[in-house]
Amino acid sequence: MSQERRTEISELGEFGFIRELTQGRPKSIDTVQSVGDDCAVLRPTKEHIVVTTDYLLEGIHFDLSYTPLRHLGYKSVVVNLSDVYAMNAIPKHITVSIAVSNRFSVEAIKEIYEGIYLACDKYNVDLVGGDTTSSTSGLLISVTAIGEASPSDIVYRHGAKQGDLVCVTGSLGSAFLGLQILIREKQVFLSDPNMKPEISEKNSYLIQRILKPEAKRGLIEFFASNQIKPTSMIDISDGLSSELMHICTRSDVGVVIEEANLPFDEQAYTQAMEFSYDPTTVALSGGEDYEMLFTISPEHHDLIMNYDDIRIIGEIKSKEEGQKLLTRSGNLYDLKAQGWVSF
Amino acid sequence: MSQERRTEISELGEFGFIRELTQGRPKSIDTVQSVGDDCAVLRPTKEHIVVTTDYLLEGIHFDLSYTPLRHLGYKSVVVNLSDVYAMNAIPKHITVSIAVSNRFSVEAIKEIYEGIYLACDKYNVDLVGGDTTSSTSGLLISVTAIGEASPSDIVYRHGAKQGDLVCVTGSLGSAFLGLQILIREKQVFLSDPNMKPEISEKNSYLIQRILKPEAKRGLIEFFASNQIKPTSMIDISDGLSSELMHICTRSDVGVVIEEANLPFDEQAYTQAMEFSYDPTTVALSGGEDYEMLFTISPEHHDLIMNYDDIRIIGEIKSKEEGQKLLTRSGNLYDLKAQGWVSF
Repeated sequence: MSQERRTEISELGEFGFIRELTQGRPKSIDTVQSVGDDCAVLRPTKEHIVVTTDYLLEGIHFDLSYTPLRHLGYKSVVVNLSDVYAMNAIPKHITVSIAVSNRFSVEAIKEIYEGIYLACDKYNVDLVGGDTTSSTSGLLISVTAIGEASPSDIVYRHGAKQGDLVCVTGSLGSAFLGLQILIREKQVFLSDPNMKPEISEKNSYLIQRILKPEAKRGLIEFFASNQIKPTSMIDISDGLSSELMHICTRSDVGVVIEEANLPFDEQAYTQAMEFSYDPTTVALSGGEDYEMLFTISPEHHDLIMNYDDIRIIGEIKSKEEGQKLLTRSGNLYDLKAQGWVSF
Repeated sequence: MSQERRTEISELGEFGFIRELTQGRPKSIDTVQSVGDDCAVLRPTKEHIVVTTDYLLEGIHFDLSYTPLRHLGYKSVVVNLSDVYAMNAIPKHITVSIAVSNRFSVEAIKEIYEGIYLACDKYNVDLVGGDTTSSTSGLLISVTAIGEASPSDIVYRHGAKQGDLVCVTGSLGSAFLGLQILIREKQVFLSDPNMKPEISEKNSYLIQRILKPEAKRGLIEFFASNQIKPTSMIDISDGLSSELMHICTRSDVGVVIEEANLPFDEQAYTQAMEFSYDPTTVALSGGEDYEMLFTISPEHHDLIMNYDDIRIIGEIKSKEEGQKLLTRSGNLYDLKAQGWVSF
C-alpha cells in the first residue's frame, strides 16, 4: 500500500468511491449500459452466454503479506476468464464486488482496480458493475465473468471419447511451488524481520505463476483459427488429477496419463528438488496453474503439435480401465485426486 | 440453526457439499448447462441481457441473532431480482456464492438454500452456478442475477422528463421500522435473556418487510400487459430521497414530492410514533423497502390509478427547480439524501 497519501473510503461515501474507481473507463461496443444503473445492460452477439463466478477471500485464497494489490486485482479477473476460455467461449464482461474493512484506504483499493483494469485491457473485457461495501474483517473480492459462444463451439467436460488424446498447456506445478517459496520466505521474515526475502531471478517465474497467472486466450484463438474443437476441456485450478477425474466422471470414460510426458518447467523441477518434493506429485496435485486440460480427437494430432504450448500427456480409455498413471518405470498406478481443499 | 443433527462441511468436501446443495433441482428451458462445468451456459431469448450483483455480509447487512437462515437466503435472491425488475427486465438466472466459517454446519447452509430455492420458484429463476468456500469469519453471500429484455423495453434512470408523474409502489419506511424493532428486542434480550422478545401480530408485517422482502414482479407484468413503459425507474434500496436524487441527476431534471402523498402503512405509522420518529423522515430515508420508484408520462394517469399498489407522489420539474418536498403545511423544503450508508 502506498504510504504517501491515505484517503478514507468514508470521506468519499459509497457513490463517490464507486465513481473514483470506475470513472473514465471506455465502454465496449457490446456494453449498452455500464456502471450507474440498477443493472448493466449487455448486447450479446452470439446465441449462448456463459457465466462463472469466483470468490477471493483474504486469509483463505490470498495473504496480503506477500500479495501485491495490483496482482491480486489482476488475478481475481484472470481466474474467472480462465473458466470462460475452458468452455471455448469468449469473455466479454465482468462484475467485481469488493468488501473492505477500514484498514484499507481508497489508494489501496485503487491499486487493486489498476490490476483489474490491466486484465480487462489485456483480455478485452469490460467491467460493467459490482457492489462495494465495508466488511468487518479483511478484503473479499467476488468476480463474475460473462462470455459468449455459438452453441456448436461450446466445449463441456462431458464429451471425452475413448481414443482421444489428453493434452495440457504450459507446465504444471509451478504456481504451487511459487506459493511454497512465498510461505517459506514469510516464515523466515516472521522469525527474523531483518532477513531479506530470498526471492531472486532463479524463482521469479514460479512466484509470478502464483501471484499473476494468465488465462489461455491464445489456445482458444488457435482452436478457432484452425477450426478444431476439443471433445472436452477444463481449466486446471485444483490440480491435474482432480480435473482429470472431473472429465472422466462427466464423460464416463477412463484415462492413462504418462508420467514421462507431464510438462514441468526447469525452475519448477529444481525448486521441487530443493523442497524434497516429488515433481510428479507436484505436477498432478499442485493446483492454481490455470493451464488448460483438454481431450481431442487423434485426427488433430499433427495440428496441435504445431502449437508450442500444448503437450500430449495421455489417452482416454474405456471407463473399465479406470484412471491411471503410467510411471517412467512402466508401472500403472491409480490416479488420486488431491486437489485444492476449500474446506 | 437446527439442533438435531450437525454435519461438518469438511465431511462432504467442496464437491460433495455443492452436490448436496444443488442436486435434484429442475433445469429451466433457458438453461443449457447448470452447475457442474467451468461455466453455466444460458440461452437468452431476447436481444439484451441485464446483470446485477449484491453482497450480503454478516455483521454488515444482517445479524444472525434475529435473521432466520431461510429468510436470509430468500432475501439475498430477492434484492437482486428487484434490480432486474427496476430495468423493466425479466430475471432468468442467478449465481450464488457463499463463504462460511466452520461455525456453520451443512444443515445450516441447507436452510439458506431452502430460502434461495423458495425465491427461485416464486420468481421463476434458475440457480445455475456459484462458488463455495470457507471464510475466516462469518457468512458472506454474493448473488448475481441475469435477466433479459428487448432493447425497447428497458427502462433506465436517465429518462425522466419535466411533467412526468412520480410514482412509488407499496408503502415506505416499513422495513426500516421492522429493523428498529429487531434491534430493540435484541438489546432487551442481551440485557435480560429471560425477557421474551416483543414481536407480535401488531408489528409482524414490519418485521417481514426487513427479513423477507418481495420484488415487484407484478408491476413489471402490469406494464407489459398494458403496453406502457415508465420513463425512468429505480428500486428503493437506499431510501426514497436518495433514489429520487439518482433519477434527477441522471435525467437532468428536478422534482417536487408531496408529503401528503407519501404512502405509509398503518403499522408503520403507529410504530414510528412509538419510536418518536417523524414518519415523513422514515418514509424518505428508511431504505431496504425494495419498492419501485418510477416516472411516467401523465397520459398514463388513469391506467396506473387502476393498479392498487401504485401511488403518485409528485411531479418531475425542470432542473432549475431543484429537488423539493412540499409539506402538508404548504412549505417547500430541499430533499436531502440520507440513504443507507455503506461506509
